[in-house]
Amino acid sequence: MALIKCIAAAFAVVTAFVIGAMVMKFAVPIDLPDWLQHMAQERHNTYSQELMDEIKAENIDSNLKFFSEKPHMAGSPQDEEVLAGHIYNTWKMNLDSARNYIYTVLLSYPNASDPNYVSILQEDGTEVEESAKREKVLRMGQNDPTVVNPFNSYSPAGVVLGELVYVNYGDVGDFHYLARNLSLDLTGRVAIARYGRIFRGDKVKNAQDWGCAGVILYSDPADYVAGAGARVYPDDWWLPGTAVQRGTTLRSSGDPLTPFYPSIDSAFFLEEKDAGLPTIPVTPIGYDDAVKYLSKLGGEEVPPAWRGHLNITYRLGPGFKVPFEKSKIKLYVQTYNVRKEIKNVIGYIRGQYEPDRYVVLGNHRDAWVYGGIDPSSGTAAMMEVSRAMGKLLKKGWRPRRSIIFCSWAAEEYGLIGSTEWVEELNKILGSRTIAYLNVDLALTGNDSLSAMATPALYTLLYEAAKRVENPNPAEVAAGRKSVFDTWLAQNPSHYNQSAPHIDGPGSGSDHTAFLQLAGIPVLDVSYAFGKAYPISSYPMYHSAYETYDLVSRLMDRGFKFHQAVARMWGEMALTLADRVLLRLDCLEYASALQRITAEVEKTEGPLLQSWNISLDGVKSAAADFHEAATTLHAKLGKINLKNPLEVRRVNDQLMQLERAFIDPLGTARDLMHRHIIYAPNQKNIYASSRFPGLSNALFDIENDEQQMWRWEQVKKEVSIIVFTIRSAASTLRDASDIGGL
Amino acid sequence: MALIKCIAAAFAVVTAFVIGAMVMKFAVPIDLPDWLQHMAQERHNTYSQELMDEIKAENIDSNLKFFSEKPHMAGSPQDEEVLAGHIYNTWKMNLDSARNYIYTVLLSYPNASDPNYVSILQEDGTEVEESAKREKVLRMGQNDPTVVNPFNSYSPAGVVLGELVYVNYGDVGDFHYLARNLSLDLTGRVAIARYGRIFRGDKVKNAQDWGCAGVILYSDPADYVAGAGARVYPDDWWLPGTAVQRGTTLRSSGDPLTPFYPSIDSAFFLEEKDAGLPTIPVTPIGYDDAVKYLSKLGGEEVPPAWRGHLNITYRLGPGFKVPFEKSKIKLYVQTYNVRKEIKNVIGYIRGQYEPDRYVVLGNHRDAWVYGGIDPSSGTAAMMEVSRAMGKLLKKGWRPRRSIIFCSWAAEEYGLIGSTEWVEELNKILGSRTIAYLNVDLALTGNDSLSAMATPALYTLLYEAAKRVENPNPAEVAAGRKSVFDTWLAQNPSHYNQSAPHIDGPGSGSDHTAFLQLAGIPVLDVSYAFGKAYPISSYPMYHSAYETYDLVSRLMDRGFKFHQAVARMWGEMALTLADRVLLRLDCLEYASALQRITAEVEKTEGPLLQSWNISLDGVKSAAADFHEAATTLHAKLGKINLKNPLEVRRVNDQLMQLERAFIDPLGTARDLMHRHIIYAPNQKNIYASSRFPGLSNALFDIENDEQQMWRWEQVKKEVSIIVFTIRSAASTLRDASDIGGL
Repeated sequence: MALIKCIAAAFAVVTAFVIGAMVMKFAVPIDLPDWLQHMAQERHNTYSQELMDEIKAENIDSNLKFFSEKPHMAGSPQDEEVLAGHIYNTWKMNLDSARNYIYTVLLSYPNASDPNYVSILQEDGTEVEESAKREKVLRMGQNDPTVVNPFNSYSPAGVVLGELVYVNYGDVGDFHYLARNLSLDLTGRVAIARYGRIFRGDKVKNAQDWGCAGVILYSDPADYVAGAGARVYPDDWWLPGTAVQRGTTLRSSGDPLTPFYPSIDSAFFLEEKDAGLPTIPVTPIGYDDAVKYLSKLGGEEVPPAWRGHLNITYRLGPGFKVPFEKSKIKLYVQTYNVRKEIKNVIGYIRGQYEPDRYVVLGNHRDAWVYGGIDPSSGTAAMMEVSRAMGKLLKKGWRPRRSIIFCSWAAEEYGLIGSTEWVEELNKILGSRTIAYLNVDLALTGNDSLSAMATPALYTLLYEAAKRVENPNPAEVAAGRKSVFDTWLAQNPSHYNQSAPHIDGPGSGSDHTAFLQLAGIPVLDVSYAFGKAYPISSYPMYHSAYETYDLVSRLMDRGFKFHQAVARMWGEMALTLADRVLLRLDCLEYASALQRITAEVEKTEGPLLQSWNISLDGVKSAAADFHEAATTLHAKLGKINLKNPLEVRRVNDQLMQLERAFIDPLGTARDLMHRHIIYAPNQKNIYASSRFPGLSNALFDIENDEQQMWRWEQVKKEVSIIVFTIRSAASTLRDASDIGGL
Repeated sequence: MALIKCIAAAFAVVTAFVIGAMVMKFAVPIDLPDWLQHMAQERHNTYSQELMDEIKAENIDSNLKFFSEKPHMAGSPQDEEVLAGHIYNTWKMNLDSARNYIYTVLLSYPNASDPNYVSILQEDGTEVEESAKREKVLRMGQNDPTVVNPFNSYSPAGVVLGELVYVNYGDVGDFHYLARNLSLDLTGRVAIARYGRIFRGDKVKNAQDWGCAGVILYSDPADYVAGAGARVYPDDWWLPGTAVQRGTTLRSSGDPLTPFYPSIDSAFFLEEKDAGLPTIPVTPIGYDDAVKYLSKLGGEEVPPAWRGHLNITYRLGPGFKVPFEKSKIKLYVQTYNVRKEIKNVIGYIRGQYEPDRYVVLGNHRDAWVYGGIDPSSGTAAMMEVSRAMGKLLKKGWRPRRSIIFCSWAAEEYGLIGSTEWVEELNKILGSRTIAYLNVDLALTGNDSLSAMATPALYTLLYEAAKRVENPNPAEVAAGRKSVFDTWLAQNPSHYNQSAPHIDGPGSGSDHTAFLQLAGIPVLDVSYAFGKAYPISSYPMYHSAYETYDLVSRLMDRGFKFHQAVARMWGEMALTLADRVLLRLDCLEYASALQRITAEVEKTEGPLLQSWNISLDGVKSAAADFHEAATTLHAKLGKINLKNPLEVRRVNDQLMQLERAFIDPLGTARDLMHRHIIYAPNQKNIYASSRFPGLSNALFDIENDEQQMWRWEQVKKEVSIIVFTIRSAASTLRDASDIGGL
């Protein structure tokens, strides 16, 4: 009995010891600091749905109404004070902090009391067929006194008289055709070019290079109205003849007076004459006016591909036919430049464990007029995403990494606000930013998602698009339940039937400086019109008719498409900010490099071979990159997620990969564009060039007199591509594998 | 009783529970991973003394004997095969791994069977006073058949006949004096310049710019022999008249055929004519030969400051006096360029917790001849440091961060091996390297330590110097027990009586690319001769007499001075690799910026004021930087050392600070030198310029015809300095304080 008691007692004691030990082991891990307990937890799934549900169409609707109520051009009190102030106050309230970044930059305006116009000056000195000085008001609420008259920013002032020549879209090929094939001398003549295909600044640059004295830009129905019977605004979304597209002619990014450096007080400001601005006057008109001049043009008929959809016979000129053969076109431009303060507003959510890693979301605030689409549809979405995140913060969520919201100023003039900010903060942003997620326009149509990105972000885009409900009930009924499904159905990539198409990153919005100056992965998304539309952009682009009325009545009733874009945006930001391993995909980059190499080989291979230049080195470098990416990718599955330094190490490799494609010497001597794989096409900065250095070196090379020198440049560009890809591959290898080029 | 038993039993159970719990809590922290347990431990102190004790003079002695046994010029089998192979094998055995990096680069050699020389060509066609074609053998073992004849690399071949002109040191001031003050036309004449004061390549460049047809470089006793009665080698270390200084004339760094990019197989190689090489022949001679030509010079007597210590009346020329007035100087040069493979050898110790952070130690391997001092004294030290670390590894030590040893090729030709390597690996090195610690020459004398560094490394240098025993018994007897004590006594800084002087980083050794292309903190140390010596460098510099005999017999008997340098080097590497918080000092940088600003204000202020240019912006930026550095510095004391992400965050800020001073656009349009605070002086790349952009913009500005344009450049440079300092300050602020410029 005593023995039993003893055994029982001993058993009790041992059990108690073991239990005590177990309790400490499993229940009281107090030596494990907070950050370590959470380190391996994927909180992303918990909050993803919550954020999604919190983002609501009706809020975006009222945001858009507010932001597009009045014109809010860069430098205007409405944009720099009212709207910027509203955003600042909202973020100050909802997020951890907010801050304004002010720069003094060169802007450009038409003279309100002496408007620009085009007319025909007859021999007797009388002017006829004067173009409209302002856009006709078509709907209530479009007659705000601050609507700016149509103009192209940074045009010099001047009155030009000359013979009119039709130059089609005004791209290099068009001018070559006129000058080489037709031997048409453009010197001193006035070019009329239709909008579309390429960036308008490049049209002006080409006209200038070919000796023109002035440029008229107009919107042809062929590019902005679908088909002959299409109804136009306000009955439908197609472009009416009274609409005029405004827009900048600046071909560089940022304040033209402070290239490469921020326009802060201590900056060195160039004189305007040294700033690379256009030297010939330019102004835009609508097609109701354009037809008056085009219909009177003499000369040969244009080639079939040059014909627009006006009900006339398109002729080249130069000059008018009888009875106007002695009349001249007159271009009257009183646009002027002025230095003004602009204001970026930045809102900040501090990351819990890695506050020094930033996920940056941005959209510009300034519009040419009301900005119903460009940019306030994006602003409306951004404000809703930030509000929803603010709400989650109050519920106890805090992202692992920091999230930064940016409202950019003066994008329309040449990406000025975002460029100055990146120039100012490049050292911080370059070493800490995971990605920059841009939404310029939340929608340009309601057919399908449209995206532009560097390959590292493809997977992030796909995954987010799969999580977001399809905003189109008809598509859902057809079995396409997610945004991804419609995107894939409408716009599959040409290389993979299960991946939708994603554009390469050109210029044209605020992602540019992040990618090109700082080597940060970037993307831009919007809901867009389908590829089947034969139009150059959404029709009302940069006109006074781009309003809340247009969007809410004709493009997104109920704002479900806006909501889908906002949800994607929020989901992508949350994924990048919260997941333990960064959702950046080096394997997609590897595939993209091999694909680009194969495509360039296909298009340029024969030409290169004729000069004994091989792309074998590029192929071999891309294969090495693929091998390094595969190894790193495989490693990700074996990372000890509880070891923060191990996690940080591979995350840094993933984050810095994009930096490896940056060459500080720029591509083809262009120091503002430093990305060796993707940079804006030098002949059309809207478009993305692959291997831009090579593509620029090859441009029109057959017609150059300095053949030897040009081909040496081509060889040099090939060597830079090989080196850069090998260098990028080396960053993916283990830290102890230094080099391996 | 039963109650008591029950209580006792209960007590036993509870006690057992508590003990069990305690055991788990304190004795079995198995959930705390290894790295976290060690994370807050400063292991540095434990291993510092062990490393110090392991580094032994006798090993350095035998290393030097081995490395300087035969001539080992860049590109020679002895350097690229025998010595490189030895280092590779040694590191492969002692360290974690080793690797060769091979580049094909442009080198230059004299024609062995047709040596260069100088002579006097008389009117009758006879040549007299021919210079020695090789250096006389003064000691046993100096007659190796692979000793290269005296030459200056990259000189073009050519035979020049002309009138000789003495140009003193050949710096810009000297040429200005001749051309402006004396109106002496140098066109087509042959310059004879004495070595010293500035880099020889700048002398050649100046002669070329002023129209000379050739250059003779010679060593004047004034610059390489102390006093009239001084005994020369082999009796003492002073320069004998038969010694000739070899050396490169390349003013850029790296392979001249591949600027900015590595000379790998796929590289684009410039043609030699485009590589910026000297265009006029140049060759060096000793003073036994120089006196033959200088003593015959006619023309005016030189100004007193131009006189050397040869026993003649120094005259300027041009041309010789009677009876040689019709004779010409003849310069016969058969130097040629050839592309050859060179080999860097890299040894690697993998860091335990942060393998992706590198502490890099380097020294070049190639010598002009035996390299007794330059560079094999440094090589001997490096091999001993790496051996000692290898021994520690076997004892169980492993540094927190990685340590990398580098044996550079072809430094003497223009920092070629190190520059190509940094060009190749810039993306990896730039994002991961803590610091680069260079030792080119372990000693040039035995009076005091001499150091060059960026301010971030001042504290590291001071602390290490305090820990290393004074190698000089007389100094120890005088109470100066450490290397630091003698250093401070011999060479105090001009601004702080308790801090020894440290030079700013110029060029002239392998740290250059690390600092200027990658923004990595750098330093270089050696034991040096005292400031009291009136000499330009250690006398035997680049001559065939720079041998083991010279070092072991006349400069460091017992190798204790070598040992002291090796110990400092090892201690600094260990500190950077092992301490939890990086030993980089942003406060010292802050003080340096304020000091430089004050000094530049003092020297340039009046000139700037005359054009209404103020340095107030620079002062205010430096004050802001100081405030940010003070705040960060204070924060370091409060870091939770157990939180690796918190530690990494501030460490990254400290590490990346130097990057913030890098402008990818270069300083004053020089793209190889991108550091805005310190860069090589453009008129003497050996020297460091403070605010190099400004200093270059101001150089000789008063005499420039384009005053307005020049002063606009000055304003621009001031604006860049202000911006850069503000940008650097912003990187020191908290991660959530984005910007603050």
